[in-house]
Amino acid sequence: MSDILSKAKAARSAFIEISTLTTEEKNRALNRIADKIWQNKEDLIEANQMDLEDAEKAVKKGVISEAIYHRLKFDESKILNVVEMIKSIASLEDPVGKTTYAIELDESLELYRVTSPIGVVGVIFESRPDALPQIASLCLKSSNAVLLKGGSEARNTNQFMFSLIKDATTKSGIPEGWIQLLDTREEVTCLLELNDYVDLIVPRGSNSFVRYIQNNTLIPVLGHSEGVCHIYIDERADLDKAMEICMDAKVQDPSVCNAVDTLLVHREIAEKFLPIMVDKFNKCRVEVRGCPVTIKIMGDEVKTASDDDWGAEYLDYIVAIKVVDNIDEAIDHVNRCGSHHTDAIITEDHEAAMKFMRRVDSASVIWNASTRFSDGFRYGLGAEVGISTAKIHARGPTGLEGLTIYKYYLKGSGQIVRDYIGKDAKKFTHRPLKKIWK
Amino acid sequence: MSDILSKAKAARSAFIEISTLTTEEKNRALNRIADKIWQNKEDLIEANQMDLEDAEKAVKKGVISEAIYHRLKFDESKILNVVEMIKSIASLEDPVGKTTYAIELDESLELYRVTSPIGVVGVIFESRPDALPQIASLCLKSSNAVLLKGGSEARNTNQFMFSLIKDATTKSGIPEGWIQLLDTREEVTCLLELNDYVDLIVPRGSNSFVRYIQNNTLIPVLGHSEGVCHIYIDERADLDKAMEICMDAKVQDPSVCNAVDTLLVHREIAEKFLPIMVDKFNKCRVEVRGCPVTIKIMGDEVKTASDDDWGAEYLDYIVAIKVVDNIDEAIDHVNRCGSHHTDAIITEDHEAAMKFMRRVDSASVIWNASTRFSDGFRYGLGAEVGISTAKIHARGPTGLEGLTIYKYYLKGSGQIVRDYIGKDAKKFTHRPLKKIWK
Repeated sequence: MSDILSKAKAARSAFIEISTLTTEEKNRALNRIADKIWQNKEDLIEANQMDLEDAEKAVKKGVISEAIYHRLKFDESKILNVVEMIKSIASLEDPVGKTTYAIELDESLELYRVTSPIGVVGVIFESRPDALPQIASLCLKSSNAVLLKGGSEARNTNQFMFSLIKDATTKSGIPEGWIQLLDTREEVTCLLELNDYVDLIVPRGSNSFVRYIQNNTLIPVLGHSEGVCHIYIDERADLDKAMEICMDAKVQDPSVCNAVDTLLVHREIAEKFLPIMVDKFNKCRVEVRGCPVTIKIMGDEVKTASDDDWGAEYLDYIVAIKVVDNIDEAIDHVNRCGSHHTDAIITEDHEAAMKFMRRVDSASVIWNASTRFSDGFRYGLGAEVGISTAKIHARGPTGLEGLTIYKYYLKGSGQIVRDYIGKDAKKFTHRPLKKIWK
Repeated sequence: MSDILSKAKAARSAFIEISTLTTEEKNRALNRIADKIWQNKEDLIEANQMDLEDAEKAVKKGVISEAIYHRLKFDESKILNVVEMIKSIASLEDPVGKTTYAIELDESLELYRVTSPIGVVGVIFESRPDALPQIASLCLKSSNAVLLKGGSEARNTNQFMFSLIKDATTKSGIPEGWIQLLDTREEVTCLLELNDYVDLIVPRGSNSFVRYIQNNTLIPVLGHSEGVCHIYIDERADLDKAMEICMDAKVQDPSVCNAVDTLLVHREIAEKFLPIMVDKFNKCRVEVRGCPVTIKIMGDEVKTASDDDWGAEYLDYIVAIKVVDNIDEAIDHVNRCGSHHTDAIITEDHEAAMKFMRRVDSASVIWNASTRFSDGFRYGLGAEVGISTAKIHARGPTGLEGLTIYKYYLKGSGQIVRDYIGKDAKKFTHRPLKKIWK
């Protein structure tokens, strides 16, 4: 506990320093990190090689999967991607220091609301060698101090990457405490108790892991639980468009949170749509599970869906299909069984689309496009911290803005509240100001 | 449990309806509530009379304080204030439906981020007869459904007020489930477990109560723990201004969260400032507790501060004074002992002020004005949900905006993600749009 406490305290005191850096200072440091990584690519690959050797043994023992082994590998082209990603974060607009509200309360009494970093952020992330530099860069750009804990499979890669980043930023005049690496799982358990020192936790990983974190800390958690995504094919859908979109949303990459799980099909077009759609799915080895009406139309080309299928997140080549009587039933199903992540309607009817979009309570509601677009990069937010399923602070694909909050600055000339109270009270002018804080 | 669960479910399904109301519909309903309350003022006063009679007995038994008794009283002038407050909420800008980001991802593929209600909000509030109508009006204006639990001392007043509001809104075509009244403490305990149905809890009341709520629910909490406020009197302060501001911040109303608790006085001006300041405090029966240097200057006019005084929230006629060597010591003290609520610097030195404002990590940082200005109404936000000491979502004085989040709307024409991936990938245009969603 004492070790992680001292790391958290060091991060907190460095946070005040890093929160006062200029945009130029931060960008210079980010570019320096990128250069440092590129200069040390051979040593990085060597460190990664140690992780890969351990992972190979673990794969043989059946302790980790082949997929994790492949994700772990850091070669020159992946390092180049990381370098480019850091440079692109440097080129993004500074999310900190923006005036979002300015008002004169009275003569010479001016109020400004200015975006600011959150403070100390704890990030627990998966075993991917590009995760650490991405998270560190996002935190630096948003002037937050960061406590990092990566997957143990990437231990050597992370340790070396961390030392490169720390070295590059220290040489850029950034207090070294701003970035801290946690070594053990026990440190994560301790971290969850440090609500006096840590302002936000960002867990990345499986749903059960994110839920575990949420259930075991008083620190706010910015996370993503499930992505149960629906596509509703309306009676006035262009069926070719619908089939293209459903295929893309299911098979382009079924392992991701914005892949579709359930199709809701309007009764009027079910007999025309289902045979072709199911055939396409079958050709791509997608298992289709249907409601009784779907079964009636498709026979044994489709398995019978159980109650558990409505609201299931498959992350696999499986899709559930339900025939609905009308758009209201579809909306109700999505709001009841979904996870408020990403849901789509396919229709040529403007009014139906508007109804669906207004009434579906999800972070992203999509009309005539694939659910797979719901992603920070595709949404033009630059790098992504994650896709939040929270309903406060940050919702949906979350970029740098999700790592900021704001401060109120009030600049007076001796005003006191007593003068604005009671019988002869002075009145507030509350006149909007077209000025920014600096 | 079943009763509160059915209330929460009813609120959730009403939320979808209320989230689609137009600004005009909401404002019409708000004005109807105001009229209804004014028309029924005699019956309201009568319901309140029942609460007052119970409270009188409780005061005699020593169960509740005189202060609570007085706060409970609802007379015609207080009812008029409530009516005006509701009408002023009707006149505020609609916080929902504002486009805050619009970008073309590609031709005929447009993304909009639009402010939206959070969903179902649970509010637990103190025994003041104006709390229920204020909270209900803020939730209606921001299109949230609301579960309300008021202090039991105001039971009859709240019950009658609730029936007036429900009646007025139902007559305005708003689904009656949108507002629910909880009757017992047990229902609050159950409410804390309903994280599948309730999106946000707003507890109002004592620090210990807010902390209890935070520690006992997985639902996000928008609350205010402590307000430990500092004023730093810099070596280049205008001492007359400083004394006026310190007096105002302490004695105008010491029972509130933005009253000052600790003065930090620069060593250079301590001998000049302290004798006059302490004399003023003594004249207003403010107990002064000083650090060793303060004691050295002031002798027994000042009590000795203990370690517990640094970081104490007094809510009373008590102030602690510490002499500091320089601005850095002051900033460090505020960040270490404060509660990140509201802190001020008094100085004529622009550079010192900027340093203090940048480096003090508080929701409101004030230069040459009283800490007491930190308040939603004074900040021009209209009605206030509360002052948040959270560092995510909403920070500082929180108005209607704190009851909103956003949704992404993506409008396409059949686009799929596969076309934007791989070798011949289409490029995103990511061209900002000067359009709003409607």
